[in-house]
Amino acid sequence: MTATDPVANLQTLIRCPSVTPAEGGALSALDAMLSPLGFKVDKVKATEAGTPDIENLYARLGSDGPHLMFAGHTDVVPVGDEAAWTHPPFAAEISGGELFGRGAVDMKGGIACFVAAVSRYVEKHGNPKGSISLLITGDEEGPAINGTIKLLQWAAERGERWDACLVGEPTNPDTLGDMIKIGRRGSLSGRITVHGVQGHAAYPHLADNPVRGMLQLTSALMDPPFDNGTENFQPSNLEVTTIDVGNPATNVIPAKAAASFNIRFNDTWTADTLQAEIIRRLEAAAKNGALRPGREAVRYDIAWADRPSHVFLTRNNALIASLSSAVESIAGKAPKLSTTGGTSDARFIKDYCPVVEFGLVGQTMHMVDERVAVSDLETLTQIYETFIERWFANAGA
Amino acid sequence: MTATDPVANLQTLIRCPSVTPAEGGALSALDAMLSPLGFKVDKVKATEAGTPDIENLYARLGSDGPHLMFAGHTDVVPVGDEAAWTHPPFAAEISGGELFGRGAVDMKGGIACFVAAVSRYVEKHGNPKGSISLLITGDEEGPAINGTIKLLQWAAERGERWDACLVGEPTNPDTLGDMIKIGRRGSLSGRITVHGVQGHAAYPHLADNPVRGMLQLTSALMDPPFDNGTENFQPSNLEVTTIDVGNPATNVIPAKAAASFNIRFNDTWTADTLQAEIIRRLEAAAKNGALRPGREAVRYDIAWADRPSHVFLTRNNALIASLSSAVESIAGKAPKLSTTGGTSDARFIKDYCPVVEFGLVGQTMHMVDERVAVSDLETLTQIYETFIERWFANAGA
Ligand SMILES: [Zn+2]
Ligand SMILES: [Zn+2]
Repeated sequence: MTATDPVANLQTLIRCPSVTPAEGGALSALDAMLSPLGFKVDKVKATEAGTPDIENLYARLGSDGPHLMFAGHTDVVPVGDEAAWTHPPFAAEISGGELFGRGAVDMKGGIACFVAAVSRYVEKHGNPKGSISLLITGDEEGPAINGTIKLLQWAAERGERWDACLVGEPTNPDTLGDMIKIGRRGSLSGRITVHGVQGHAAYPHLADNPVRGMLQLTSALMDPPFDNGTENFQPSNLEVTTIDVGNPATNVIPAKAAASFNIRFNDTWTADTLQAEIIRRLEAAAKNGALRPGREAVRYDIAWADRPSHVFLTRNNALIASLSSAVESIAGKAPKLSTTGGTSDARFIKDYCPVVEFGLVGQTMHMVDERVAVSDLETLTQIYETFIERWFANAGA
Repeated sequence: MTATDPVANLQTLIRCPSVTPAEGGALSALDAMLSPLGFKVDKVKATEAGTPDIENLYARLGSDGPHLMFAGHTDVVPVGDEAAWTHPPFAAEISGGELFGRGAVDMKGGIACFVAAVSRYVEKHGNPKGSISLLITGDEEGPAINGTIKLLQWAAERGERWDACLVGEPTNPDTLGDMIKIGRRGSLSGRITVHGVQGHAAYPHLADNPVRGMLQLTSALMDPPFDNGTENFQPSNLEVTTIDVGNPATNVIPAKAAASFNIRFNDTWTADTLQAEIIRRLEAAAKNGALRPGREAVRYDIAWADRPSHVFLTRNNALIASLSSAVESIAGKAPKLSTTGGTSDARFIKDYCPVVEFGLVGQTMHMVDERVAVSDLETLTQIYETFIERWFANAGA
């Protein structure tokens, strides 16, 4: 008996309480679905000082090219207010045509459908003329240190090479078939500290209020816009996510002020050119005397958060067309090709092969009562199966 | 033996460790100096729920008008890093012509000199043709709730009326004789909270970052200036003393942001007209869409700190001339008539009678190694004695 039923697959996976960093039995359950199909399954434990050990899984069916990878994660975010769930978060109960549980859409549902699709494909066609792999991590919702990055390195060191990747994250805003992601904006974060001179509020000329300098610097970061967007991307956008002075004394001018910012950037920029532009803006704003007439330039320093996420855009037409046409055939509408939203592990995979993303409807992800329409699970399974067929047809051609 | 030596008086007072709210023996020591001169001395304890009980002192010599009040405080700020003092803070040691100790200039020194001046005046002239009072609080450096305000009320309820007041705070920036204070700016504080909508940094259109609104509001408070100063006052000045968001997550847009501000304002404004102007600026800035294009007005609220300090300017020519000419006669230079600096208890006294301020050089006040030149104590005593003579001559004329 093979795992051709996405609903049964998903119920099995949801019943494994795999809140990051716990494996919760989810990868073993996946192993039990894939091994009977002929997949060679490896469990890969990743460790790093200061973070919990993580179980990951890599499974390959076939040994030749072309080689298609499906990527995802079995870890899930915490349940939040468990009492607020109308169905227990790890029970996988079906009610009113919906299957309830943590991970239903993000993204045990996507994995359940892909496993069902592969099972049906193999039943129908036998082994593919090439290879299909699943690269599944248990550390996507956590620090992402012992997850996809290390699993890709582990596989690449063993000679694994891929021609294309489909990530099964929930990409559809409203209904199944809305949106394929063909790229992602980059993400860059930093923290600015402005150094002033402490003093009494009645003697501002003897002090140098760092709040004034901070207002100049942060305003310059937000305005004007960095760009107007590009053919495939929204405009880049910077948000100052916090300003912290922490001065309890109203009659005291504080000594320093700190602020953090995050920018989601498009292909106008690389992380390097964007850092240079941010520095240019800060330097110009530091010399601007609007709020600090007659003063020296604002004294500040900036610390960049480690590991910016690089922007990427997938230009592999065969991959995009295989997925897009599969969606249109099964869901009955052409999906939008988008680069919106947050980052995903696709930002790591894009260094190995072209990558696209398509999965369930994301509306309830990370929320209480996360759930998926049972009918969507069947539809997504058919889309995935059709995609596999068309991709091998295109790639083999 | 009367207290004609300001150095001995000051040593006695410094050796009383009267860090707010402790009386430390300072008022009893003062009582022992004043009673032999014929002063009727009252100790006045003030209490209020939530703050420590405070000892205050009111002493009057004579029963007729005209009535001159000297006002001050015996409480002192904490010693800070005691190990950093070159002489113990309550030892009152003299070294290199300077007397060291907490309160040396702020303002046991001023009290010591006034007591010496009165002692010399009475030795020379007998009782004044009128009355001299000392209104001394133990709660100037603390919350100032159980101090000068209540002591003035207590005395006024007993029928006390004054024609003029000299406050002995350290008013000289560099050398004795630099500066008389003839008024004070007002002080007004408030706290603004901007309400946004929390969200993910990758979906800013689904959120509303309150930092953007806060930048608009606080920038509008600081720029342009409120006024250009007046004949007797510096320009009003506003400082944003803290901005606090406290959002640790770089990928999260926070729900709200708070900021506090303090404005030192001149006689262009009353506290009421200034509050109205601040509200006008906030309302205009809230509607400005520069950093929030296409958004509704910034949602914010403002909480005013209790009890603004009202601006005042003393216009009593006889009082100012008596003090100014006394300074010029003894110190050899005409003092600047100023309204700069922070608030003092003169802001409470001005509701009862005209008030001016003159004392020692303030450079070491509130610092480690607070100290006063011994020669300055003699000079200030002579200035105070000359002032008493001239004020009664002017007031009696
Ligand atoms: Zn996910
Ligand atoms: Zn003082």
